[in-house]
Amino acid sequence: MKRREFLGAGAGLALAAQSARAQSGGDATKRWISVAESLKPKLRETVRKPVSLVRPVADSAAFLKWRMESLGAAAEIAGRSLKRGDSFILDFGGHLTGHLAFSLAGEGSAVDSPVRLKLTFGEVPNDVAVPLESYTGTLSRAWLPDEIINVDFLPQRVRLPRRYAFRYVKVDVVDTSPNFAARFADFEATALTSAGDKPFALAAGVPGLLRRIDEVSLDTLRDCMQTVFEDGPRRDRRLWIGDLRLQALTNYVSYRNFNLVKRCLYLFAGLPREDGLVAACVYDEPKPLCGRQYIMDYSALYAAVVLDYVRATKDLAAARDLWPVVRRQMEILGAFINRDGLFSDPGNWWLFIDWNDELDRTASMQGVLLYGYQQALELAKLAGAERDAADYPARIRSMTAAARSAYYDPARGLFVSGPKNQISWASQAWMIHSGIATKQEGSAALRAVAGMPDAVRPVTPYLYHYVVDAMLACDMKEQALDLVRSYWGGMVQAGADTFWEVYKPSNPNLSPYKSLLANSYCHAWSCTPAYFLRGRGLAAL
Amino acid sequence: MKRREFLGAGAGLALAAQSARAQSGGDATKRWISVAESLKPKLRETVRKPVSLVRPVADSAAFLKWRMESLGAAAEIAGRSLKRGDSFILDFGGHLTGHLAFSLAGEGSAVDSPVRLKLTFGEVPNDVAVPLESYTGTLSRAWLPDEIINVDFLPQRVRLPRRYAFRYVKVDVVDTSPNFAARFADFEATALTSAGDKPFALAAGVPGLLRRIDEVSLDTLRDCMQTVFEDGPRRDRRLWIGDLRLQALTNYVSYRNFNLVKRCLYLFAGLPREDGLVAACVYDEPKPLCGRQYIMDYSALYAAVVLDYVRATKDLAAARDLWPVVRRQMEILGAFINRDGLFSDPGNWWLFIDWNDELDRTASMQGVLLYGYQQALELAKLAGAERDAADYPARIRSMTAAARSAYYDPARGLFVSGPKNQISWASQAWMIHSGIATKQEGSAALRAVAGMPDAVRPVTPYLYHYVVDAMLACDMKEQALDLVRSYWGGMVQAGADTFWEVYKPSNPNLSPYKSLLANSYCHAWSCTPAYFLRGRGLAAL
Repeated sequence: MKRREFLGAGAGLALAAQSARAQSGGDATKRWISVAESLKPKLRETVRKPVSLVRPVADSAAFLKWRMESLGAAAEIAGRSLKRGDSFILDFGGHLTGHLAFSLAGEGSAVDSPVRLKLTFGEVPNDVAVPLESYTGTLSRAWLPDEIINVDFLPQRVRLPRRYAFRYVKVDVVDTSPNFAARFADFEATALTSAGDKPFALAAGVPGLLRRIDEVSLDTLRDCMQTVFEDGPRRDRRLWIGDLRLQALTNYVSYRNFNLVKRCLYLFAGLPREDGLVAACVYDEPKPLCGRQYIMDYSALYAAVVLDYVRATKDLAAARDLWPVVRRQMEILGAFINRDGLFSDPGNWWLFIDWNDELDRTASMQGVLLYGYQQALELAKLAGAERDAADYPARIRSMTAAARSAYYDPARGLFVSGPKNQISWASQAWMIHSGIATKQEGSAALRAVAGMPDAVRPVTPYLYHYVVDAMLACDMKEQALDLVRSYWGGMVQAGADTFWEVYKPSNPNLSPYKSLLANSYCHAWSCTPAYFLRGRGLAAL
Repeated sequence: MKRREFLGAGAGLALAAQSARAQSGGDATKRWISVAESLKPKLRETVRKPVSLVRPVADSAAFLKWRMESLGAAAEIAGRSLKRGDSFILDFGGHLTGHLAFSLAGEGSAVDSPVRLKLTFGEVPNDVAVPLESYTGTLSRAWLPDEIINVDFLPQRVRLPRRYAFRYVKVDVVDTSPNFAARFADFEATALTSAGDKPFALAAGVPGLLRRIDEVSLDTLRDCMQTVFEDGPRRDRRLWIGDLRLQALTNYVSYRNFNLVKRCLYLFAGLPREDGLVAACVYDEPKPLCGRQYIMDYSALYAAVVLDYVRATKDLAAARDLWPVVRRQMEILGAFINRDGLFSDPGNWWLFIDWNDELDRTASMQGVLLYGYQQALELAKLAGAERDAADYPARIRSMTAAARSAYYDPARGLFVSGPKNQISWASQAWMIHSGIATKQEGSAALRAVAGMPDAVRPVTPYLYHYVVDAMLACDMKEQALDLVRSYWGGMVQAGADTFWEVYKPSNPNLSPYKSLLANSYCHAWSCTPAYFLRGRGLAAL
């Protein structure tokens, strides 16, 4: 109630109202954060042992240009004496998010100094094959997961205090003393997750590649499920709305940790911008904090994440509780719809849609905003707040009509975007999700765009998700499955244990951060094949 | 009793005896270690704050070629924003051994990555002025006190888990993210020592330089007094017999922590070589361990450390308890005295005396071994074990006579050593301590050697101690005081807060490890001016 007053406060109420607003907003956000914190999960710990000793081999046939070659069982490391300049790489056999510990002893005439080690954690062979010192990416060097440590007083059990996301660990012995060598043993990782037991495997009759894609999806989700749904545990480790939506959808058909989704929704509700706009991302550590970055499409999708959650759980209390937040998003975003019902780019907002600089986002944004209103309207009905959304149906009609006339090229059967009438997969997908395209138009558009080599394609699994989902919306199950098989299957065939942040089959060097070393290879928004296979019937095809 | 049987076991008793021997030796050493462990001190903690921000300035007039220039109060760092490549140096105003903590926050549009820092700890300006990456010394690189750390989740109180010996801390910001700068505040060191309250200062009438020398001596001892008497807290951190002797002597006239000396004596007793020889050094961490290095002169001096302790404390029970250990040393070392009563270098032993490769050690070793027998004989009397030492007087007479004829050059009034009749300060000093030289001969020899530019001089405060002590033995108080004033005073004038491991006024680059970066600038064996000033009357001169 207080929240609604705040949202509805007219300009005429001036200073007194502003103060009351800050007050009541503060009360609500505090409560939302307190609900979120009450749902903070205790992480499950699983001990994982390394499987083998490996070395990276440059391989032009490998997608990422490196492959691992086995040098024997991991336990063999216990038989080796290592001195200055020696190194080895352990392979844990699969990805994990967690901690590392090992035993370190000295062997020689006198263990008379500390041992200085460098440890480098890798999700893919590149991460440990390419020296991190060569890094020139745009993200902080501090994200690269290597440590230089000095270990006093051998023998000792060494436990690294920080958390890493890795399959490979490279150990470089920077120095012992001339009088002794280092002996390593009993490497052990403690994998962390807020995911519960792994769901039943897909039926044996499902083709092997699909079963593997499903498994890799589930492992990706598991390793991103921590005290929040992280986007990528190697780096960033933040909760983003865009990632959350896809993780939550997959979670509903796999680990079913509903409270974690609820917690995340309440964190966003509790950490808005001063005007109530939800942040694109929030931090969970050192305490819940607003990420102070705002993505217009993510704000619009908040409505969808809440609606998905309410539908999955029937938690109507949460629907009512969060409705004012959703309503406030649509209110703020409504300012960017012009009188003709078209999205008008203010120029100073981050519009995401995909990590692709070439993409013209105008049509996609129209679709996302319209989709947001539609999801919000559905939520209003469930929350018993239809009156608040009384003007949504008219807005939806106006935006739909405007978009059809602005972006649809009936002659070509395609949606276009921007001054150059750019044709992209993104535009087709979002015209479909928002109902601007009919099923028939959508299906034709998706078929057409797939046959156009110059059409702007997605570069992230995030946007590919919305393309597959658009295919399903147009009853294109076979094509959807083909795309899952070729795109996510392409990563599997390139050796992925967990799905990647970025995958563009034609460009292995693509990085949003100008360095592959900063890419995340276990990334939340890539986990949705399990959603399609399990929740949308693709496994049964 | 068992111990004596062990030591006396004849060869004829064969295997059964060997087994019993191992058994009884094992029982005794276990007990000695258990006594040592029962005396392990709880360290006193003192909070120390940095005083100023400084920068090193190359200065050819400075002994170590660098001096510090103040840039303002240390607290000013809290007002600075630091980004990639920025750095600063804090000066704690004096040396300490302990831990470091500080507060780290981020400032900017988003604190969206960890911070990667490099911290370098320095005892002298050089340590933080010269990049540690340039190190090519013979000791392990792992001894150099720098850390590279990644700090997640700002703001945070960062506490470095390891212990350092330092006055200066250099902080390099390796990276933040482009979106924020690092803010540092509240640097705090927790200084550790097993020394108690600082003893009363020297009388105001004592000249300023001597009072400062005394103070620096006491600070040196304080920072080396940890759970054992360490040789140097920057590095090594071990308990060595040679250092222990000088620390214990100074401790008796200052902090008077008698139990720490007892603990150290029992550690050596409990951690011998298989044949009962005491090690030159032992480790306290991760548990009491034999250092497996053996220095002949240090083994001989074990008798002196025990005797000093018993004289300082009247702890006759310890005298009786440790007598078998002392006796065993003299028994083993006796094998290196030939039938003529002369020390015969077996060639495969470490003979220390001083860190000076040029030094011929033959005469000095004769002196140290003979001194050992003399100290052992006095201890036997206090321990009621004179019968065990029945053959010592004859051996002492024979060694004295042999040395006089072999090493004394009556024409020059000097003692010589080795095939080339080398003349060194070391030889004169040890001929005096062992009573081979009379007071008159000793005094003349010390005066003569001081006037010979080619005589081999000491390079360490350790040997300078024995020279000053030899002067006192020859009633040369003035000369002893002059040497304290010029040698240790030279370090004070070069800026020392604590006395150095190595100081050769003519060679600022001298390092036993081929790099100044590996030298220790707070070194146990350098602390004895306080002993001379307080315990031997030099302050009253």
